[in-house]
Amino acid sequence: MTEPLTAAQQLITSHLAGGRMAPGEEIALTVDQTLCQDATGTLVMQELEALGLDRVHTELSVQYVDHNILQSDERNAEDHLFLRSAARRFGLWYSKPGNGVSHPVHMQRFGLPGRTLLGSDSHTCAGGALGMLAIGTGGLDVALAMAGQPYHLTMPRIWGIRLDGELPDWVSAKDVILELLRRHGVKGGLNRILEYHGPGLATLTAMDRHVIANMGAELGATASVFPADDAVRAFLRAEGREEDFQPLTAEGGCRYDLTERIDLATLEPLVALPHSPGNVVPVHEVAGTPIGQVVIGSSANPGLRDYGIAAAMVKGRQTSTVVSFDVNPSSREVLQDLLLTGGAYDLIAAGARIHQAGCLGCIGMGQAPASGQHSLRTFPRNFPGRSGTLDDSVFLCSPETAAASALTGQLTDPRAWALREGVTPPDLALPAHASVNNLMMEAPLPPETAATIELVRGPNISALPDLDPLPDELDAPVLLKMGDNVSTDEICPAGAKALPYRSNLPKLAEFTFTRIDPDYPERARHTGTHLVVAGDNYGQGSSREHAAITPRLLGLRAVLAKSFARIHWQNLANFGILALEFTDPADHDRIDQGDRLHLTGLHTALGHGTEPRLTVHNATKDEDYQVTHRLSPRQRDAVLAGGVIPALRISR
Amino acid sequence: MTEPLTAAQQLITSHLAGGRMAPGEEIALTVDQTLCQDATGTLVMQELEALGLDRVHTELSVQYVDHNILQSDERNAEDHLFLRSAARRFGLWYSKPGNGVSHPVHMQRFGLPGRTLLGSDSHTCAGGALGMLAIGTGGLDVALAMAGQPYHLTMPRIWGIRLDGELPDWVSAKDVILELLRRHGVKGGLNRILEYHGPGLATLTAMDRHVIANMGAELGATASVFPADDAVRAFLRAEGREEDFQPLTAEGGCRYDLTERIDLATLEPLVALPHSPGNVVPVHEVAGTPIGQVVIGSSANPGLRDYGIAAAMVKGRQTSTVVSFDVNPSSREVLQDLLLTGGAYDLIAAGARIHQAGCLGCIGMGQAPASGQHSLRTFPRNFPGRSGTLDDSVFLCSPETAAASALTGQLTDPRAWALREGVTPPDLALPAHASVNNLMMEAPLPPETAATIELVRGPNISALPDLDPLPDELDAPVLLKMGDNVSTDEICPAGAKALPYRSNLPKLAEFTFTRIDPDYPERARHTGTHLVVAGDNYGQGSSREHAAITPRLLGLRAVLAKSFARIHWQNLANFGILALEFTDPADHDRIDQGDRLHLTGLHTALGHGTEPRLTVHNATKDEDYQVTHRLSPRQRDAVLAGGVIPALRISR
Repeated sequence: MTEPLTAAQQLITSHLAGGRMAPGEEIALTVDQTLCQDATGTLVMQELEALGLDRVHTELSVQYVDHNILQSDERNAEDHLFLRSAARRFGLWYSKPGNGVSHPVHMQRFGLPGRTLLGSDSHTCAGGALGMLAIGTGGLDVALAMAGQPYHLTMPRIWGIRLDGELPDWVSAKDVILELLRRHGVKGGLNRILEYHGPGLATLTAMDRHVIANMGAELGATASVFPADDAVRAFLRAEGREEDFQPLTAEGGCRYDLTERIDLATLEPLVALPHSPGNVVPVHEVAGTPIGQVVIGSSANPGLRDYGIAAAMVKGRQTSTVVSFDVNPSSREVLQDLLLTGGAYDLIAAGARIHQAGCLGCIGMGQAPASGQHSLRTFPRNFPGRSGTLDDSVFLCSPETAAASALTGQLTDPRAWALREGVTPPDLALPAHASVNNLMMEAPLPPETAATIELVRGPNISALPDLDPLPDELDAPVLLKMGDNVSTDEICPAGAKALPYRSNLPKLAEFTFTRIDPDYPERARHTGTHLVVAGDNYGQGSSREHAAITPRLLGLRAVLAKSFARIHWQNLANFGILALEFTDPADHDRIDQGDRLHLTGLHTALGHGTEPRLTVHNATKDEDYQVTHRLSPRQRDAVLAGGVIPALRISR
Repeated sequence: MTEPLTAAQQLITSHLAGGRMAPGEEIALTVDQTLCQDATGTLVMQELEALGLDRVHTELSVQYVDHNILQSDERNAEDHLFLRSAARRFGLWYSKPGNGVSHPVHMQRFGLPGRTLLGSDSHTCAGGALGMLAIGTGGLDVALAMAGQPYHLTMPRIWGIRLDGELPDWVSAKDVILELLRRHGVKGGLNRILEYHGPGLATLTAMDRHVIANMGAELGATASVFPADDAVRAFLRAEGREEDFQPLTAEGGCRYDLTERIDLATLEPLVALPHSPGNVVPVHEVAGTPIGQVVIGSSANPGLRDYGIAAAMVKGRQTSTVVSFDVNPSSREVLQDLLLTGGAYDLIAAGARIHQAGCLGCIGMGQAPASGQHSLRTFPRNFPGRSGTLDDSVFLCSPETAAASALTGQLTDPRAWALREGVTPPDLALPAHASVNNLMMEAPLPPETAATIELVRGPNISALPDLDPLPDELDAPVLLKMGDNVSTDEICPAGAKALPYRSNLPKLAEFTFTRIDPDYPERARHTGTHLVVAGDNYGQGSSREHAAITPRLLGLRAVLAKSFARIHWQNLANFGILALEFTDPADHDRIDQGDRLHLTGLHTALGHGTEPRLTVHNATKDEDYQVTHRLSPRQRDAVLAGGVIPALRISR
């Protein structure tokens, strides 16, 4: 008799293309679906071109345009034209700007229980709400998946999270994931799949689960998996595709590698303080903090009920004169439903600035707050400067907390507000049929037509650089010394200045690490080959592979860190940068910026069958440090060759 | 018996504070109301501060925030805080970002038949739709009006435009003003007040008249005046302020200085081709031109019916996959009404990207098209690069033409579309009561509270520079030689890069003339004192006084041109730059960039009672040219002193 499987294990078993399903081992998974958004997608499309792909091999691949849609000059619009042409050329669906954020739209139109989804966006894990194995990763991994290759990852541990009870009034799904972040911080999910189960699930809709699954990324998790149950069936029915439903639940008696329990009934409104999603406290502890901006929406709160609850709370009232109240619809479908229910009217009448469906300012491309102004958002992240304002102060919370605070101009516990105002929770019944609308979605062209499509390449779209193999020896300075939890936003900033160059790598490289050290690009250009040193959880946050490519362009060949965030660690290998971990984390403190480090015998150390150990000599201090790498044989080959693309060229 | 007066003459007579109401003479008018928007307003508030104002002397002054509301970094939000604090300090109303464009909002909430309105935005003339004398001008003039000073201008000629008949199906108010532009071009209204009269008026609502009055700016007119009649009363009634109505009509037998007649029944859909609002042809002549973007909205088509007709046309249909269909609500009120009528739903369902109420990308701060893509807009202007895309290609048209073209992806005559689709014109009855909502509008503080308010000055807000007096002699090179119709967009660009610096004059100066010659700022910084030469209608377009201040900061002391646009000409005098016109326009061609010009005896030539003539010696070519100025004695004093602010200091 075989061991009963968790839902995640069933998803892995049914897609296992290599390796053994044991935590810590490299496994390969077949990929059914992929998604890209525009900020990462232009590079992915260039990679498809570099790989010589004729047509995607997946069941379904979608190119969304949701990030860079404010268009303060021609470059964003030109990227849209390029992406559309690439989608037509390679056989992808194309979702036009204004159709919405990839994650909710994908869930509405394409999500399928039991399937795998790989996306070049760290919040791809939101797809787990439908019982998918949905993983965010670097663009090159997505390109390879579209080319028919399996996806390689280290088999995570399955973290069974049992939900009991029912959420109290004025507490919602966002508070569930904030509670997990409060308990475990931004590294709590590293190398884990979060699998939700238990009787409390029955009280959460599929979109509630999306909220929770989405921000698994903030815990550093590989994926979030919910079962495909009646809530999923109801969601698909409302989307007009009940026939896509198939059940997926953990088998009775299955065992989780780790366990957790949340009694939903005990939760209260929570808020993540600046500057980390893991910096969570109860709202009542910081109530009264003045607020200058409130933003609701994003992929972290994309459901009709998330806007509906805010609309019901502000209906007939007026948001504070000192607050900019921004509403960011996450999808055209939800915006249409919000119009039909009257919620959009109530929000606007109460002072909302309503924006087109998309990511708005999630990575600093719009609605940046003033310096010194506290901004309260239902967004997933509040890394420093991510809002577009260098010295920003961003708080993350539920729509209930956001709406109450918009009304008062202060951080406000929605329970206290409701008590004071004598308000009872509104009835937020969802419509039986959503405003399904595929008209901003272009279907893939038939192969014979697709083959005739030329890529529309604007002047701002560069080609992929050539990457040289790793030398056997590195003798180079530490050009930057960093602490813990450095995010990819800090390595390769987004924001309105940098984002238009995301397809122009040499220009984008000029922004590398500038949030941490404005002189880094200049210093790197003078130095050439160099290393950087970091603390724990290096490269957390966004999946953008630009954070690996642009420092590589400037001469970065190795990162020494206490630990790495999963996606960035993969991206480093993909682009030939050696990711090394200190055996003794205390060695991190012994190295200073400017020290000259010496690494020899790299080719031997990365050879197959060898120990993943290396000795690093600090020539400046005359000290030695032990470091290890966690590269699989496949990744070792890639790093030695200078990256996955040169490795594939060699193997041809 | 006195001569019967036109409506405009009655407005002038009732506000005449100096001078004689004879065309060509300088008159002074008392100012009842003022408006500022944020792109020009930050400077105006600095001017109020420099003038030492305690509280505005007008009946009503409003500070709107409508232009710079996309906020890709902290600077725009900081300007909003500064503007709010200044409005509170000086006794203005403050209209929050998201409340809408100054012109329609002012008309909805504050416009009063029979009053004067001065605004630091060239489209202030839209206020004439309600029977106001509404004039756009430089910010300093508005600051002086708030300080209680009368507004000085050259008495224009009254141009009586008689409207007969009724517009055919699929032809609307925008086509009326485009017809005037087709007939007379962008200089056709220079030094004129356009006064509309005749039986055709009865078929145009107040908002239709707004469309026509607004784009009087594109003809170069000083103002557009409509009578206050039943249509105005109906509008005010729907706005809940019928008591504000008072009739104003031309007296029987009055005489216009110039006359024009438009038979509305003969009009057809028109379009202004790139790159001038005066470049107008019938749509059918250019039908089939491929279109990549369609934008409806702006102050040039701000009425509910303008969105409603587009919504009715696209309802149940899908806009072209190759078109980005952007909807730019001009006011929160219209957006609320559009939600109530279902029009917003129909637009979004058909593929619209809906944006917050405001100016969107009217001056290049958002939704810029791709290079080489034709953009079709219901906006008022299409000067080169104004969309934010340097080599843009912008067409201006009615909402009917825009909607038909959005559906087909080609420039389309809406009549041809309706015929083909078998569509009859929809019934667009306006609601009897508009969604009146003052909640995003902060009323002036009582004086005692206002006096305690501190200005909130972000790091990006500079102080006004000191300006030195005009020397008696200029011996300086022509640093730039230009042709006809140079706009203030070309002198001092807007767009997402420059706009955040509109409160930071030294930074903004780095953009001066760069659309025409990227090296100008560098050359000017090396050269110091210099002149520029231009053709006809120099300084058309936006009222921004930055286009006078920033070249002045770089050393510009005189402009020699064939002729000047009204507002910029006033701004030049306000900031101490000598505006000189060639007696023989052919002399323009004799001067080359780099020629050294010599002007002597300036103090005598600008003395009171002297002839406004000067001889300019071209030292490079050894030639002489005759030039004149049109400065009033008041303006002569200002230019001699270096500008109005130093002149006021002297006179104290």
